[in-house]
Amino acid sequence: METTPAPAPPAAALTEPVGSPDAPVRSGVPEHGRVPKYYTVKAAVEELVEGMAEGSVLPTERELAERFGVARETVRQALRDLLLQGRLRRSGRGTAVAGPKLAQPLSLRSYTEGVRRRGQVPSRTLIGLERRPAGEALGARLEIGAGEAVWHMERVLLADEERVGLESTYVPAARFPGLDTGFDPDSSFYAYLRRQGVRLAEGEERIETLLATPREALLIGTPPALPMLLLNRLSRDADGTPVEHVRSLYRGDRFSFTTALREEP
Amino acid sequence: METTPAPAPPAAALTEPVGSPDAPVRSGVPEHGRVPKYYTVKAAVEELVEGMAEGSVLPTERELAERFGVARETVRQALRDLLLQGRLRRSGRGTAVAGPKLAQPLSLRSYTEGVRRRGQVPSRTLIGLERRPAGEALGARLEIGAGEAVWHMERVLLADEERVGLESTYVPAARFPGLDTGFDPDSSFYAYLRRQGVRLAEGEERIETLLATPREALLIGTPPALPMLLLNRLSRDADGTPVEHVRSLYRGDRFSFTTALREEP
Repeated sequence: METTPAPAPPAAALTEPVGSPDAPVRSGVPEHGRVPKYYTVKAAVEELVEGMAEGSVLPTERELAERFGVARETVRQALRDLLLQGRLRRSGRGTAVAGPKLAQPLSLRSYTEGVRRRGQVPSRTLIGLERRPAGEALGARLEIGAGEAVWHMERVLLADEERVGLESTYVPAARFPGLDTGFDPDSSFYAYLRRQGVRLAEGEERIETLLATPREALLIGTPPALPMLLLNRLSRDADGTPVEHVRSLYRGDRFSFTTALREEP
Repeated sequence: METTPAPAPPAAALTEPVGSPDAPVRSGVPEHGRVPKYYTVKAAVEELVEGMAEGSVLPTERELAERFGVARETVRQALRDLLLQGRLRRSGRGTAVAGPKLAQPLSLRSYTEGVRRRGQVPSRTLIGLERRPAGEALGARLEIGAGEAVWHMERVLLADEERVGLESTYVPAARFPGLDTGFDPDSSFYAYLRRQGVRLAEGEERIETLLATPREALLIGTPPALPMLLLNRLSRDADGTPVEHVRSLYRGDRFSFTTALREEP
């Protein structure tokens, strides 16, 4: 296999301004402290990748180690970081240039609608649907008694058949008694709500980052150390009554969220 | 030092429903696959921490290893995860129970205003202020020529003197020619904008997660592997002209963002 010409020495690459306005200037050059060697390799691989099309396969770890004059373990660490960040993705036994992160607007629309708007095909796989007492914290959030029953529906979220997230929906069972028989879990829950005559009028969402648990990583098909985006949503109907609490976990290497900001009084 | 009574065996702890509605049900129990031992320890430490007040110091690694009958390295891995998630924090040479993550509303207000609203004291440390050509990507975003000058101001963000983030602000130099002399970098840039007669009317923000670079980790004082929340904002004035591009990086273990969702037509 013909290898592409070696990029400029890493040290030089690191001091040049980076093209994208989202990239930090002089990324990776501490004013004090030393730069770990794998990070120098990572920056060089990033530069290499910049000139490659989405889906292109990278040279092997061995080839990259030779090119940069470092140990294969150093290359592996650099690639692992770029995989976690979604700059690269696994492709068979190799590593390929990943596409840009999906940008999903924060809105009261469903996952389904968000994915369709991006021109992808949404689907879901049911992990479990169970009825259980709300408990103190969830009961308070849904404004029902701790002993009242809730449905907990857990689904893996897919876009174009790729697993991208894991969603837990909690709704009061008294309001949706027929959820286990009347709802197809591989369909939009918000479409089901509309058929039940429930209109979501407002919601509150909290966004944070966390590491996937081993169980979550297994269900989504990611490494456990992958940073995830966690969204906790409480949706209310037109009367202000809580309808659902949703805990959604999205792959941090594949997703970003966007929002429009308006001037406040 | 008197140790607290040992918690229920980890296996039992893992199968019980978790109190918070934000926590996954049966977190850490894959239907298939095995649970890493450190994860069992992590769940047991989480349960132990639930009964402790914020700021309480945990038993030492050695004590925890004895209590759970595992190697110190296993305890260390469990604590590292909880530190990354912000459940614990370093306290001298020990580990203490951390407070809840700060919840900052996504809004066109400044960092300064957000922190003050939470009752904390905001401050900033200037890392650098430099004038440079915008370049293609940033120029397009700010709707100026690639060769036109921008100011790049980089500041560490602090809340109650704790370093919590790193912010890069890019503004067209032609619009703010006196930024280097007329602006105190340890003050609110948005207050400066108002004094210059600039009113921010709208903005677009993108939120994602990524790992801090060694340089960023050094400046914010976090481990390099810490997942961060990255916010990229473009703010416009009342005429729709771009005023600033801001790249803000917040500690993922200390910050969350909130937003209100409204029904869309």
